[in-house]
Amino acid sequence: MRPFLLACLAASALLAASAGWQSEGVVDVNQSPHARLHAVPVRAVTMGSGFWASRRAVNAEKSIPTMLAELEDHGIVDNFLRLEGKKDVPRRGPLYTDSDLYKWMEAAAFVLQSGDDPKLRAEFDRLTGIILAAQEPSGYLNTYWSEERTAKRFTEMYRSHELYCMGHMLQAAIAYYRATGDRKLLDGGIRFADYMVANFGPAKRPALTGHPEFEMALVELYRTTGDRRYLDFAGYLLSGVERARLHLTGDQLVYLFSGKPFTSRTGLEGHAVRAMYAACGATDYYMETGDAAYLKTLETLWGDLANRKMYITGGVGSRESGESFGEAYELPNAQAYGESCAAIGNMMWNWRMLLARGEARFADVMERALYNGINSGMSLSGTLYCYRNPLESSGEQIRNAWYDTTCCPPNLERILASLPGYMYGTSPRGVYVHLFHNSDLDWRLEDGAGLRIAQRTEYPWKGTVDLTVNPAHAAEFSLFVRIPNWADGTAIRVRGAAPANARGGEYYEIRRRWEPGDTVHVEFAMRPRLVRANPLVREDVGRVAVERGPLVYCLEQPDQPDSNLFDLSLTGGGSGFDSEWRADLLGGVLVLRHAGLASERSLAGEPLYAALEAARPAPGKKVVLTFIPYYAWANRGPSRMEVWVPYTPAAAE
Amino acid sequence: MRPFLLACLAASALLAASAGWQSEGVVDVNQSPHARLHAVPVRAVTMGSGFWASRRAVNAEKSIPTMLAELEDHGIVDNFLRLEGKKDVPRRGPLYTDSDLYKWMEAAAFVLQSGDDPKLRAEFDRLTGIILAAQEPSGYLNTYWSEERTAKRFTEMYRSHELYCMGHMLQAAIAYYRATGDRKLLDGGIRFADYMVANFGPAKRPALTGHPEFEMALVELYRTTGDRRYLDFAGYLLSGVERARLHLTGDQLVYLFSGKPFTSRTGLEGHAVRAMYAACGATDYYMETGDAAYLKTLETLWGDLANRKMYITGGVGSRESGESFGEAYELPNAQAYGESCAAIGNMMWNWRMLLARGEARFADVMERALYNGINSGMSLSGTLYCYRNPLESSGEQIRNAWYDTTCCPPNLERILASLPGYMYGTSPRGVYVHLFHNSDLDWRLEDGAGLRIAQRTEYPWKGTVDLTVNPAHAAEFSLFVRIPNWADGTAIRVRGAAPANARGGEYYEIRRRWEPGDTVHVEFAMRPRLVRANPLVREDVGRVAVERGPLVYCLEQPDQPDSNLFDLSLTGGGSGFDSEWRADLLGGVLVLRHAGLASERSLAGEPLYAALEAARPAPGKKVVLTFIPYYAWANRGPSRMEVWVPYTPAAAE
Repeated sequence: MRPFLLACLAASALLAASAGWQSEGVVDVNQSPHARLHAVPVRAVTMGSGFWASRRAVNAEKSIPTMLAELEDHGIVDNFLRLEGKKDVPRRGPLYTDSDLYKWMEAAAFVLQSGDDPKLRAEFDRLTGIILAAQEPSGYLNTYWSEERTAKRFTEMYRSHELYCMGHMLQAAIAYYRATGDRKLLDGGIRFADYMVANFGPAKRPALTGHPEFEMALVELYRTTGDRRYLDFAGYLLSGVERARLHLTGDQLVYLFSGKPFTSRTGLEGHAVRAMYAACGATDYYMETGDAAYLKTLETLWGDLANRKMYITGGVGSRESGESFGEAYELPNAQAYGESCAAIGNMMWNWRMLLARGEARFADVMERALYNGINSGMSLSGTLYCYRNPLESSGEQIRNAWYDTTCCPPNLERILASLPGYMYGTSPRGVYVHLFHNSDLDWRLEDGAGLRIAQRTEYPWKGTVDLTVNPAHAAEFSLFVRIPNWADGTAIRVRGAAPANARGGEYYEIRRRWEPGDTVHVEFAMRPRLVRANPLVREDVGRVAVERGPLVYCLEQPDQPDSNLFDLSLTGGGSGFDSEWRADLLGGVLVLRHAGLASERSLAGEPLYAALEAARPAPGKKVVLTFIPYYAWANRGPSRMEVWVPYTPAAAE
Repeated sequence: MRPFLLACLAASALLAASAGWQSEGVVDVNQSPHARLHAVPVRAVTMGSGFWASRRAVNAEKSIPTMLAELEDHGIVDNFLRLEGKKDVPRRGPLYTDSDLYKWMEAAAFVLQSGDDPKLRAEFDRLTGIILAAQEPSGYLNTYWSEERTAKRFTEMYRSHELYCMGHMLQAAIAYYRATGDRKLLDGGIRFADYMVANFGPAKRPALTGHPEFEMALVELYRTTGDRRYLDFAGYLLSGVERARLHLTGDQLVYLFSGKPFTSRTGLEGHAVRAMYAACGATDYYMETGDAAYLKTLETLWGDLANRKMYITGGVGSRESGESFGEAYELPNAQAYGESCAAIGNMMWNWRMLLARGEARFADVMERALYNGINSGMSLSGTLYCYRNPLESSGEQIRNAWYDTTCCPPNLERILASLPGYMYGTSPRGVYVHLFHNSDLDWRLEDGAGLRIAQRTEYPWKGTVDLTVNPAHAAEFSLFVRIPNWADGTAIRVRGAAPANARGGEYYEIRRRWEPGDTVHVEFAMRPRLVRANPLVREDVGRVAVERGPLVYCLEQPDQPDSNLFDLSLTGGGSGFDSEWRADLLGGVLVLRHAGLASERSLAGEPLYAALEAARPAPGKKVVLTFIPYYAWANRGPSRMEVWVPYTPAAAE
């Protein structure tokens, strides 16, 4: 046997040895033939102190425990116990409450992927017992479609959320399996999946995911078990061939983002979370099958998202009515819906697109959503949540501890808990740094050689990122460092060499023979930026937004003590921004200051409409506008807030 | 007896002699102690040719006949016939369809107030027979809350529309009585009203107008019959004291605009049509009672409307969700709801406020709504209707012949049919000209002396209005000419004397001894105007609207053949507007042209967000923008449209 082949076999054996649940990431595309990048397991990344560390600590210590208490208080667990005859209470909550508990369990499972917590594990196991005791011998499980509604099972799939709930159950089960190797809940999920596969399909009963979600869960189940029937069933659901048998209306095909062939879609429409989850499932399906029609549709939809229908915060879904996408460029600010779950769906989809295609534009959208439109969804205290995430507010109560439809809170919790799994990746060529935060990667190259990376940074507040690369032994491979699309003039120094310039919006590839202890120093220019929207976004005409690094900023009323926020405008032609680190404010934020004008009299006293020439307002008082990061708004009680600020090009004298 | 007293008695006898149904206007406030102005009957005004004449001809010849056919085709008449056992068909349509037929009948009755039409009268009488045959001996009448739903009558008043439907029935009955003196339908309405009075009230069963409307109908019934119980019952409904007995939620009190004391309201909120109709009823109630708390509340609400919550078109109700008012200054354009019925409600309320207070600001709002946000609701063909009236459109289908909730079409028809009744008014001091159109008033002063006024004008296209005042005999009184609030530098010449200047936003009082044939020449300056919104309307920042006279203009795609409408902006600093009368276009319109810019490349190819400094667009091509009146949009098929156009202060070179 030749040495080369021997080496390959050794590497392959090593990969096989460490394969299994411990090596599976947030999604496990290690065997997916059409994934260009691969995920690293959550446990391979130890998060250090910094921006996300404090959010994650609050998540684990406050959000997750209090949310379980809320779920219990609102009867969501009792809904299972009553079916087992252990509680004599009526069923409570909307028909999809099972999913809220499953999503909470998935969050808990991701916490456990980062390290054991016997109490949390016991809680998970207790809930698993309660849930599985309510499962019927057939595999069917749903607390709403039982008892007097048993006969109606699968007769109203356009609204029943039966597959949606079980999709979340499977995701929780897979996350727990990847945390512990324990298959108990997973086996329950498989029983349901087998029930579906056995009874539904083109030659059997018709099925529909009235709220897409089950598709991505099925592909993940295929990845976890190797059983191709689950992948095929996901393909059947995405094929959308049951319109006639299920008597679906045209409006339903739009709203549900299911029921017609996924590959016939040409734009984003309907319920935003449904559309994002459908796109996740379709991307997962593409990575397994390589079906070019799916890739084409996914790229079309992505263009529609990134060029026409995404808020600057990464939020999606403009309309309250139907929690839906609007027309192209329909991005109202105060009326923005921007459901937290939709921003999460956006990140999840772009994560899958990143794995499929390996291109930085997907990571850019992920980061935009994560730092802004997702991050705004949970209060700094970790116990209050936004369902909507508007970009302008006259001061309504936006954060609440509980919603009857409480999809967003546990969804936010699972994203924060799984965050380490999104930071790095691998390809046959090397290793990728997707996101920036103090962290230690302890993983391997795809040839099986061990690799550790230490990342030290104060990102997003500062632009310096220091990476120390520690391969188990010196080897040639590539380190790909993501350069965000907002980053102009990024300087990269490898092992103290002269700095190179890296372009934004790409992965900067450093291919060399890496020795243990090699360093890479990255310097992102963290200048605050004034950003304008395409004038086709009519709501943003004459207005600017402020960004710095990955953060979108906003004006909030408490920081403008002398003026009604809506009497202010930002003036150009000045000396730019000042910044100040305020450790005492909002958990520690860098505030930005810029010259502006305040109207001399309150605009509320002015007429609603006036002749343009007659209405030239007085230039106004010169003032300083103070901006805080958007994610931190509404943490000092309800207050006025605005992302897109009226802009006066040159300061009036 | 002294001569003065004799004269008074004679005048009073004359007034009494001509009193009765023939002298009653759209609302009859002749006896209302707290009405400062009085309405003239519809029949006292003969409309001449011109702007509204063609709309009214289409209304009478096309809209009203085809709408009855639609109502019949959709089973709305059958819903009555089936209760009488004359049709064996299921009930069709939402629970409030009875009101759609009644509103159609009110429109027909107003047509008959302008002149007899035996065929239309026979149609009305046929429907009256059908309706009354379905009325129960108790007086109860509703096609939805019958048969299997009989037991649920008055148990779900927050949504039942039982009083709403009968309010519209009463209004139709009163309008027909005022057209013909025929009391048949009126007596049916009285039976229902008596049933309510007998069975509901503080010491009886609790009542609620879940959709306000019945209040104003009851006050009108009081005015028509003199029976004070109806006024008192309206007061009871407005008093909103049944919250506890009806278990109303806080959300319901907002949405329904009923259920809590009207006088406790501090702003407009909830369902816009409900709020406007409630305000109509409260104003009617004030005019009869003089209750100062009502007036105070009405003024507060009016300020909220005119200064914070009204579109430039006079449309109200910003949000699709709940068809509701938004927050102050929440006036989105593409997402504007602006239901036709809400603009009509706005006009009806301001008409009542005008009668109550005699101030021109109310007529200004009436005219704004009438010419724009109402007028847009019906196609030029008279057979297609807008339910929503957005101020910006990417080209959706906005006009339809039928809506399952078809409240707006017959509402538009009744407004056009009743229009002559809104044009003039009287007070003890003289006569008022509220609106401008070719017309002949044949009525009397309040002392009983006959008075004719001939009005000749090409308003709104031209600003000249010639009035010839013909008192039966020479007498001293005042002619009040409304000067619209947009009118700068209006010149008024009386009997050829030197012109006087009249201020906009007031009634110009000409007090003199009028001789038969005296002339008044009014010259409104009809300059096109660029208008800006208060910057608190963030959606309109950096944008301007175009108005001329009472008309709001818009850009529509068919008139900009070389550019996508949304690639255009309007530039300042130029030579202003050109105008051209286009007899061939849209039934004859004055088009306006103004300098603008078109982006060199399609904005759709530009990024969604970009750094302000990097994104300075090329100045663009100089183009001419062509504006048409807003009311005429969407008459050439669905197309892009925009009222608020991005504005570049000085033309780029």
